Amino acid sequence: MPTNRRIVLASRPQGAPTGDNFRLETSAVPEPGERQVLLQTLFLSLDPYMRGRMSDAPSYSAPVGIGEVMTGEVVGRVTASRAAGFSVGDLVAGRTGWQEWAVGDAKTVRKIAETGSPPSTALGVLGMPGMTAWAGLHNIGQPKAGETVVVAAASGPVGSLVGQIAKLRGARAVGVAGGADKCAYVVGELGFDACIDHRDPAMGERLAEACPQGIDVYFENVNGAVWDAVFPLLNPFARVPVCGLVANYNKTELPAGPDRTPLLFRATLTKRLRIQGFIVWDFASQEPDFLAEIAPLVKSGAIKHREDVSEGLERAPEAFIGMLKGRNFGKTLVHIAD
Amino acid sequence: MPTNRRIVLASRPQGAPTGDNFRLETSAVPEPGERQVLLQTLFLSLDPYMRGRMSDAPSYSAPVGIGEVMTGEVVGRVTASRAAGFSVGDLVAGRTGWQEWAVGDAKTVRKIAETGSPPSTALGVLGMPGMTAWAGLHNIGQPKAGETVVVAAASGPVGSLVGQIAKLRGARAVGVAGGADKCAYVVGELGFDACIDHRDPAMGERLAEACPQGIDVYFENVNGAVWDAVFPLLNPFARVPVCGLVANYNKTELPAGPDRTPLLFRATLTKRLRIQGFIVWDFASQEPDFLAEIAPLVKSGAIKHREDVSEGLERAPEAFIGMLKGRNFGKTLVHIAD
Repeated sequence: MPTNRRIVLASRPQGAPTGDNFRLETSAVPEPGERQVLLQTLFLSLDPYMRGRMSDAPSYSAPVGIGEVMTGEVVGRVTASRAAGFSVGDLVAGRTGWQEWAVGDAKTVRKIAETGSPPSTALGVLGMPGMTAWAGLHNIGQPKAGETVVVAAASGPVGSLVGQIAKLRGARAVGVAGGADKCAYVVGELGFDACIDHRDPAMGERLAEACPQGIDVYFENVNGAVWDAVFPLLNPFARVPVCGLVANYNKTELPAGPDRTPLLFRATLTKRLRIQGFIVWDFASQEPDFLAEIAPLVKSGAIKHREDVSEGLERAPEAFIGMLKGRNFGKTLVHIAD
Repeated sequence: MPTNRRIVLASRPQGAPTGDNFRLETSAVPEPGERQVLLQTLFLSLDPYMRGRMSDAPSYSAPVGIGEVMTGEVVGRVTASRAAGFSVGDLVAGRTGWQEWAVGDAKTVRKIAETGSPPSTALGVLGMPGMTAWAGLHNIGQPKAGETVVVAAASGPVGSLVGQIAKLRGARAVGVAGGADKCAYVVGELGFDACIDHRDPAMGERLAEACPQGIDVYFENVNGAVWDAVFPLLNPFARVPVCGLVANYNKTELPAGPDRTPLLFRATLTKRLRIQGFIVWDFASQEPDFLAEIAPLVKSGAIKHREDVSEGLERAPEAFIGMLKGRNFGKTLVHIAD
């Protein structure tokens, strides 16, 4: 009888997650019920939002329970189907978590779109991270020709597409990334106009130099020190789509005072800032528009992307912990089966 | 030869303005040049934004210089005209400041609209404060039927219209005001569903009770303790148009720590808040739409408003200082001539 390996949440992290927060378990491969499929996981996506699901603080989604399989989106192959519309061999995507085999409901699993690109892209540049970049700019950031767009984690799957879409719209793209290698990639390969190393103690000055006309769109996915550097450079009528706060996720207490909240409100008023949070699936109905624009550009190579692939489910916790520390270089994936 | 009396900025306030920051001066009545009119001030409008103009911190408008006439909008009567399109006797509005007589350029003075209501309303419910309420809700707040809208300074010219427009849109309107008299007026006369006294030490609990379905739109004009009470009650997808921060204007230092900025970002993300600053004249092109909807309702009495009128230019500093302390009850005006 084939066995399934899966990684469950063993305990909730205090601060940064450690290996002890995860446990590898073995169980029987499940059998699909009515209107379900059995799928073998090919790639597991690791994304920063999962840090939020490990905590039980109120958020937009329920937390993962202790002992439950870690949540996560995968691309898999259907190996048995009791659901109309799905056949053995179909490639599908679904939120079936950190495990090698899973049953998925016909309602929640979907065949991945024909994009002409490899299936793993359905988890990255053509999946949730790519759609996050596109939807945040389309609905909130709205960059215009000649404006300046700044994004952190610029070599990652969201940031890299934010900058490339900004360039498509005629805007100037300035990235922030960790280290010279990533910055060289962001400018040389992705075509950003500049990239600042957030490890540079003079990050604020470097960012100001790279944004001589100020900042019109700041795509917020990290907060922390990058926000502090961006804040004084925001132009009147700047837009700040907020889709992540990675720098804060592992913090266990608030920064020391004074309370700077009134400064944020003052700038919001005097500069007429628009600061707006969003979750990618708030804009799910726009996915066809996203794919129609971006998939051909990925296929042609006009839009570039990069994957950081670990081999084997057992490597998922280490890869996830490293990603939160910025050790990944590109979209973080775990390759589980061919 | 007739004389002009005017109030100039004598010094910049540290914290709350005092009488010493103002000086009453006498000068000759000016003569209009080409394309100018001479106007006699009938009513001077006093508004919280003027506190910002007394400081020289960067903002959306330049500060008033020391020794310059205090800025402010007036309604006046044309008494001499060298500008095409303006005749003696015309009622006009313009930003000619705290003085009894002024020349105005044809470009910056405008005839007040025919609204069927008294001229003073062009400074209040049908002027800048009313338009602030309407534009903030129309463009950012966007209240829908069944939602809950909260606004502070609810008996004032902006807040009173925010709540009444919310009711027109089918929303629940909850006000915050200072004292039992104002709260009774807000509910009994203006038709809000509830009004909380911000002097009540249990304001947060009272507000929660008055908003059993949470808050969908918070029209921010005060910040401070009212924001602290509102913040935990904001619903997912809540909108926060920010047009004023009266509670902060006189503060000379930031509140003690910790720095709560990360909490604001966290809520912005998890609740997908939209926090957006605006200045009424960002939406100047919408003024005809505003007047088309609101002027007939003011004329018919369906929309109520209240004026707090001081007599004589020399009373303007005292009235302004009192307004910043919440001592006004309705739109603060100074009556200068009939």
